[in-house]
Amino acid sequence: MNFPSKLIENAVEELAKLPGIGRKTALRLALHLLKTETEQTVGMADALLKMRTLITYCKTCHNISDSETCSICANPGRDHSLVCVVSDIRDVMAIENTSQFKGVYHVLGGVISPIEGIGPSDLTINSLLERIPGSEIKEIILALSPTIEGDTTSFYITRKLKDFNLKITSIARGVPVGGELEYIDEITLGRSIVERSNYGRA
Amino acid sequence: MNFPSKLIENAVEELAKLPGIGRKTALRLALHLLKTETEQTVGMADALLKMRTLITYCKTCHNISDSETCSICANPGRDHSLVCVVSDIRDVMAIENTSQFKGVYHVLGGVISPIEGIGPSDLTINSLLERIPGSEIKEIILALSPTIEGDTTSFYITRKLKDFNLKITSIARGVPVGGELEYIDEITLGRSIVERSNYGRA
Repeated sequence: MNFPSKLIENAVEELAKLPGIGRKTALRLALHLLKTETEQTVGMADALLKMRTLITYCKTCHNISDSETCSICANPGRDHSLVCVVSDIRDVMAIENTSQFKGVYHVLGGVISPIEGIGPSDLTINSLLERIPGSEIKEIILALSPTIEGDTTSFYITRKLKDFNLKITSIARGVPVGGELEYIDEITLGRSIVERSNYGRA
Repeated sequence: MNFPSKLIENAVEELAKLPGIGRKTALRLALHLLKTETEQTVGMADALLKMRTLITYCKTCHNISDSETCSICANPGRDHSLVCVVSDIRDVMAIENTSQFKGVYHVLGGVISPIEGIGPSDLTINSLLERIPGSEIKEIILALSPTIEGDTTSFYITRKLKDFNLKITSIARGVPVGGELEYIDEITLGRSIVERSNYGRA
């Protein structure tokens, strides 16, 4: 691409470093910013800088937070005996959006993946183990993606937790609500039969 | 969406103002920045701010530029008798990438569109008319999109230019190179027959 201006070339190159944004999209975004008020660019740059430099992670659950303890861990109305282990901050937000979970979280920061060079020590598994003794934790819910990496991580954590007297559960695997049976993959459908739940009794 | 942090919420809201970026994508981008070095966010914010505040427009052709006259208008090796009229800066870049055009440009900044409230006075048409007297301009190439708005704009400019002794041309409309005839729309195919070009003679 021949850029008419070094300034726009730099902006495009920086935007194109973002995931899923190629140089053509980056150029469209840069030209959009040129067409809008200067305040919009200033506001965006400011918000991104503040986020990157001021954000902290909750010292208990490793969720992102504006303070040392996140709003979920600091909330006495939540059930602190129930800890939901997730891979990512986005998973916390997804579960929070369901309004179905009243416990607290533990964010691993990823899953064990030898291919990507991520081992147990790169995750916050030790912090989870340290969190248990002397706490009111009674149940650990493993809410990791049903992939090889997710299952490996769940298995690893289960083994590490075996010396604690805890109930360990996993989120249900099955047919998604609204899913057509004929389009569901065989493994999911098979598991949904094996792990069938009571529907009531006539 | 429930955000665990006001800082990330602000960043997501600012990113989601960009065209084609919704709140989910904005969140993915924000979390990506959190995972990368602080320098990347600083570099991006800096490049965007510099672009927005320091960029200027060429006083002759209205292309974006780092100086008062853009590198194309300032280049004595270009053919200044040939002016290609385009709607947008991206069109200049697209034509420059073909390496087929050695003339100079005139960037209108859009096309006439009553629906979007864009009239001739919102474009740089007057600046084009002022550019002609006393100049070496001999030919104006209209390179606007073949839409109703583009054709209206071409027609308007042609009428405004009728008092000048200039050759006015339009980029060729026809079947794209590599296009399959059966998939080309009827209007394009019809025009490509009416405006057929010589292929040589046996």
